[in-house]
Parts: sequence; structure tokens; C-alpha cells
Amino acid sequence: MTSFPEIRALTFDVFGTVVDWRGGIAREAEAMLAPKGFTLDWGAFANAWRRPILAAMAPVRSAERSYVTMDALHRETLDLALGEFHIATLDETDKHRLAMGWRRLDPWPDTIAGMNLMKAQRAVVALSNGNIALVLSMAKRAGIPWDTILGADLVRTYKPDAAIYDSASRLLDLAPSEIMMVACHPGDLNAAKSRGLRTAYVHRPLEWGEGTERPLPETGEFDVIVHSFTELAETLGA
Amino acid sequence: MTSFPEIRALTFDVFGTVVDWRGGIAREAEAMLAPKGFTLDWGAFANAWRRPILAAMAPVRSAERSYVTMDALHRETLDLALGEFHIATLDETDKHRLAMGWRRLDPWPDTIAGMNLMKAQRAVVALSNGNIALVLSMAKRAGIPWDTILGADLVRTYKPDAAIYDSASRLLDLAPSEIMMVACHPGDLNAAKSRGLRTAYVHRPLEWGEGTERPLPETGEFDVIVHSFTELAETLGA
Repeated sequence: MTSFPEIRALTFDVFGTVVDWRGGIAREAEAMLAPKGFTLDWGAFANAWRRPILAAMAPVRSAERSYVTMDALHRETLDLALGEFHIATLDETDKHRLAMGWRRLDPWPDTIAGMNLMKAQRAVVALSNGNIALVLSMAKRAGIPWDTILGADLVRTYKPDAAIYDSASRLLDLAPSEIMMVACHPGDLNAAKSRGLRTAYVHRPLEWGEGTERPLPETGEFDVIVHSFTELAETLGA
Repeated sequence: MTSFPEIRALTFDVFGTVVDWRGGIAREAEAMLAPKGFTLDWGAFANAWRRPILAAMAPVRSAERSYVTMDALHRETLDLALGEFHIATLDETDKHRLAMGWRRLDPWPDTIAGMNLMKAQRAVVALSNGNIALVLSMAKRAGIPWDTILGADLVRTYKPDAAIYDSASRLLDLAPSEIMMVACHPGDLNAAKSRGLRTAYVHRPLEWGEGTERPLPETGEFDVIVHSFTELAETLGA
């Protein structure tokens, strides 16, 4: 039995929801920096890099700054993270390689199995703040089976700007109510809901590491609240 | 051994190259019209519909007309094809369903096997005059394994406008020389070549039906000249 039979496409947040950015960036940073003699809390370094990335999207969203890709924001904000950890010896080639580490993140253990189940019934579509090339590179390396990728470079702004959710409806030629946004971030889902999309919250307690778990949303706050993509696939029905 | 190791993405023309539009539309037209008592040469009907579709893209390309999706052009031009065959009894619901038949085309027999082989090494990307929703719907029904879909609705013009090929390079974050355009239409490939893309010609002699076969291009006119997607996969190397 299929629940939500009216849902034709699932649109997914990528960073945190589909892939473990913290684990991936910790690994990439260690691979680059440990051979140069640095010993850091690699997870803390990942968090210190992610925070200014989130902040760097705001002026684009408010149109104080022209659109730049997430790849470009990764390179820019790397300098902030390196500064915070007093690392001054990386050359431009190394910095570029490390910034491109955001293209080499791994999915959560349940991601691919769940997506493959969901893909049989509906379109599974990235609706990401990442640019298409970034999300595509990540997918090719990790085997993430997107039906198609809608990157922020199509609309040239960032979630939770309403234009992103509206573009999904327009580009997929579906009513907003035929689309379900899947994310581990209440802000993303609330913005999607305000544009008429249905919402699925996936709990990713380890997104920022141990001890930073956010509470589960209240029952009824989103259409679906689950702990994994496989549970989401079961909830939506085979 | 991989030939063309510098090629990171293959961009595909869809109508004619990936799918057999003529066979699919002949089937869709027969399914709709035969029960209403019409007996046509269904392949001829498909050809009579396709020709004005090709013509309808020209004023969009030249900016005489604002962009409208290929789905919309399918609906518009259906009236021309019906008129040519003196069919005046379809209601709007039937016309819409028939126009959406372009979302239900089948791949050529070699398409999916070849794409799955190519997908292991490179990104396989639709670069189509179809809008995303059209190409995605077709892919979901037929199992066409795109890594992502770049539809004409992203650039709001039609091939062979240079803006389409340039957008592939920009959105995939690749040099034009890292992209190979795959098509059965020399015009599409020549336009791609003029923007710096590499080119693979796939011969589809039955695109317009028996007796309308176009000659094979001269050796050297395109980087690769093959008769199927499986031959293309072999030529590019495993």
C-alpha cells in the first residue's frame, strides 16, 4: 500500500540529510593535514568550516551579494577555518583540493538503500544548495542514484529562499502538493511547507557530532518524521 | 583501456538519439485514435507531427517568440498534425493525453545497455530540447539511467543555439573539451563542435522510418561515428 499516493517527486536536501559532511570533511582534512604534521580534532575542524559556509549564504539570499556557487563558498570559507586552527602553510593547490573535498562526501549508511526503494515509485531529485557539478560529482563517486539534480545554480539563490521551492514545482511540472521535501533541517522543511510542498523530516543526530543532537520535531509538525531513508521508504509504501 | 580519457561527461540529445519518437508516437496515436474509428499510416502521422515541432522551435531560438516548453509545443503542433489528417473530433482531454505521449517514448534497443556501461566511467547527462519534466517522466517510465537532466527550460532557448552547449560546460563545471555531445543529428553535433565540445555521431537510420535514411557522416567529421550506444560504450572504453 502506498501512503501519500499524490506525491510524484521527493526532493532532497543533500548536506547532512543525504551525506555525512562532518565525517567526510574530517577525513579529507586529516588526509591533507596530518602528513604535514598537524594534529587537530578533525570533527571540530569540519564544524568550524561548516558554520561560516552557512553564514556565507545569507548575503546571497538577501541579494547583498551576487550569486556564487557553493564550490566557491567552500574555497572562501576554508581560509576562515584554517585561520581558526592557525594553519598557515597550505598552498593554493592544496586549498583547492581540500575545498573540493565537499564533492567527496559519503552517504549515511541507510541513504542509498532507501533511495533505491523510493526511486521505484517516485522521482528522487536533489534540491540542494550545492551547485549541480558539486552534487553530481558527489553522486558519481558515492553511487547516489538521483533521477535528476536541481542545484542552487539554477535559481542563483540559496534555501530557504522561496524561489528554490517554487522552482522545483515549475521545473518538475508538478503542483507543490505533489512534491515532498526531505530534509533533516526544520528550517528547510518549514520553508518548503510555506510554499505548499509536503514535508518529511529525517533525524540525523550525528550531523554536527556527538552531544549536539537536536530534539525530534513534535508529532504533526511535518507530514512524516523518520530516523532513516529506509524507514522513509517503508512509510511512503512500496 | 579508455579512449578519450579527458572526457568527463557525455551529453545526449534525446529525441531520435536516445528514444524512438516515431515508433512511440505511432503507438500512442493508434491507441488513442483507432478506437475512435480512424485508420491512418501511424508512422506518417508521427512524421507529420514531428516536422512542425522542429519548425516551432525556430522563432524561440531567434527570440521572435518567448520561450515555451517542448510539452507546450507538442500540444500546439498536435492541432497541425490532426488537421493534416482531417481529424476534428478529439476533445481537449484527449488532445492533452496524446500530447503527453511524448513523455512515453521508448529507448532504442541498445540505449539502456550502452548508457549503463558508459555511466560507470562518466556522467551521462541529457542535454535536450525537452524540458526537464518531459525528459524525467520519460526516463522514469522507460528506465533511462540519467545522472542528471539539463533541459532546454534551464536556458529557455533551443538547440542548436550556442547558449545550450555553453550552459552544459558552465553547469557541469567542465571545460568544453571535457564534454562529448552524443547525437544522431549532424546539426546538433556541428553546433556542439563550434562551442568546443567533442562529438559522437550515432547512426539512427529508422528515426523517420524506412526509406528516409540519411548518409553516414564522412570519417573524421566527428570524433566518433557509431551505430549504437553499445558500440559507443566500447569505443570509449570500459
